[in-house]
Amino acid sequence: MRKAIGAVDIGGTRTRVGIFRDGRLVARTSFATKGLPEVVEALRRLLVRGKAEPVAIGVGAPAPLDMRRGVILNCPNLPHWNGVAVVEELSREFGCEVYLANDATTAAIGELEFGHRARDFVYITWSTGIGGGIVSGGRVVWGMEGQAGEVGHMVIHPQGPHCRCGKRGCLEAIASGTGIARAARELFARRLTAATVVGRARDGDPTARRIVARACEAMGQGIGILWEIFEPEMIVLGGGLTRSWDYLGPMVLSAAREFARTPPRVELTPLGDDVGLYGASALHRHIEYFA
Amino acid sequence: MRKAIGAVDIGGTRTRVGIFRDGRLVARTSFATKGLPEVVEALRRLLVRGKAEPVAIGVGAPAPLDMRRGVILNCPNLPHWNGVAVVEELSREFGCEVYLANDATTAAIGELEFGHRARDFVYITWSTGIGGGIVSGGRVVWGMEGQAGEVGHMVIHPQGPHCRCGKRGCLEAIASGTGIARAARELFARRLTAATVVGRARDGDPTARRIVARACEAMGQGIGILWEIFEPEMIVLGGGLTRSWDYLGPMVLSAAREFARTPPRVELTPLGDDVGLYGASALHRHIEYFA
Repeated sequence: MRKAIGAVDIGGTRTRVGIFRDGRLVARTSFATKGLPEVVEALRRLLVRGKAEPVAIGVGAPAPLDMRRGVILNCPNLPHWNGVAVVEELSREFGCEVYLANDATTAAIGELEFGHRARDFVYITWSTGIGGGIVSGGRVVWGMEGQAGEVGHMVIHPQGPHCRCGKRGCLEAIASGTGIARAARELFARRLTAATVVGRARDGDPTARRIVARACEAMGQGIGILWEIFEPEMIVLGGGLTRSWDYLGPMVLSAAREFARTPPRVELTPLGDDVGLYGASALHRHIEYFA
Repeated sequence: MRKAIGAVDIGGTRTRVGIFRDGRLVARTSFATKGLPEVVEALRRLLVRGKAEPVAIGVGAPAPLDMRRGVILNCPNLPHWNGVAVVEELSREFGCEVYLANDATTAAIGELEFGHRARDFVYITWSTGIGGGIVSGGRVVWGMEGQAGEVGHMVIHPQGPHCRCGKRGCLEAIASGTGIARAARELFARRLTAATVVGRARDGDPTARRIVARACEAMGQGIGILWEIFEPEMIVLGGGLTRSWDYLGPMVLSAAREFARTPPRVELTPLGDDVGLYGASALHRHIEYFA
């Protein structure tokens, strides 16, 4: 049997599962997120097909989670995972070490090891929500319980819109996919996805343009704040909204320059939607610094 | 001759010089900031008196500075230090290794090694200006050129007052001693120090109260942002304005709780005005992680 590392990225919509050997993704699959049995089955299938046995499995999942106990807590988008002891269950199934971390931090590890490989950067997921992971001097900034990097909950407009977290004016409330969709619901009086709003803005609709410009300005302010705090080599973005980077990027960058004393360098992750999967495969090398 | 470590903290107003043996401050002096000759003389006097020779000297100084070259750059508050190659000059004088770092980062190192000794915290200097230093997992977050931690230049009010850095709505522009004094100049139409404004607020003057409340709210917002980003054990404050913490603290804490999802733990450094001096004595142990 060949040694392999299992990687799992549990997302609100899709779950990605992969097998790595010698630091390379050798097999992968993805499916609409359900629960633990589907992940076990997918991992087992990839391992059997590759005649491999796992030496470690890394799992990235959305907050909230209990990293110390290896348990996914009550995440509204993941009903099948509420209270699941991922680490315990998967180590029993596969007889190897299993590690669980926040999905955005896991993505940052993917960027660190397989992406731009900068030693000092902040990774931002710009998607339905806004999350982040921080790397300083080649090490993850974990925080006390592995929850550092919650850049979506920086309050950037004290009088801004209400956030689902209970505060007002969080970056996420303004600039996330959910924030864009909510602004659209208020201004168009109907339900539109963020992608549709961005499409309408591109087509010249003035209301959509205003919503999108506001989101980009907020993202630029967030990037400016992070640039001042970390003096990083770069800020790396990933997530669904970066698919429209050709349109959104210039607005974000122009705002970011206004909110920082030196122009922030912003890059998209070259790993696309697999950034979290790559990171999960390297989680075991970084978790030792989590106190 | 006994081995000692020399420590220097160059401030906009006062310069502190000390000698450490076995991790203890054994002699210190301070004087109104002038230039390099005064620092050399003070260090030499303390060393002679203690029959000691330095194995290392650490220097903390306000930004901007070139940490790689060990040079203090053009700091408006330090006319005598403009372009001084501190590291080169002091190593020639004393024949030992010399290290130079940003004063707020140096203070954070003081906190790490001699203060609360938390492994994950953000240190904030709340004074004429607002600076910061970050420690994650017991290590300094340096940034690319040792300038990380510029928490005073987070834009927290996009439409806020102009900052001397050229941006608008920086935390420093609203909450620093300079920011408070400027607001007072606009509202009272005369020059008052921040300490005087705080005193008047304490005495019930409604205009002074408004200025001070606004500064405290901004500081609370900044703390909230840092709490979300770092998930630290605590935020540690030092600097002149913390002398009025009995009055300002409750306002800052109440605001901080509104701007973070969990109540931030905020502590004052137990090292008072010597926090930077303590940090300078330990700079040599931390600078190795500066890439």
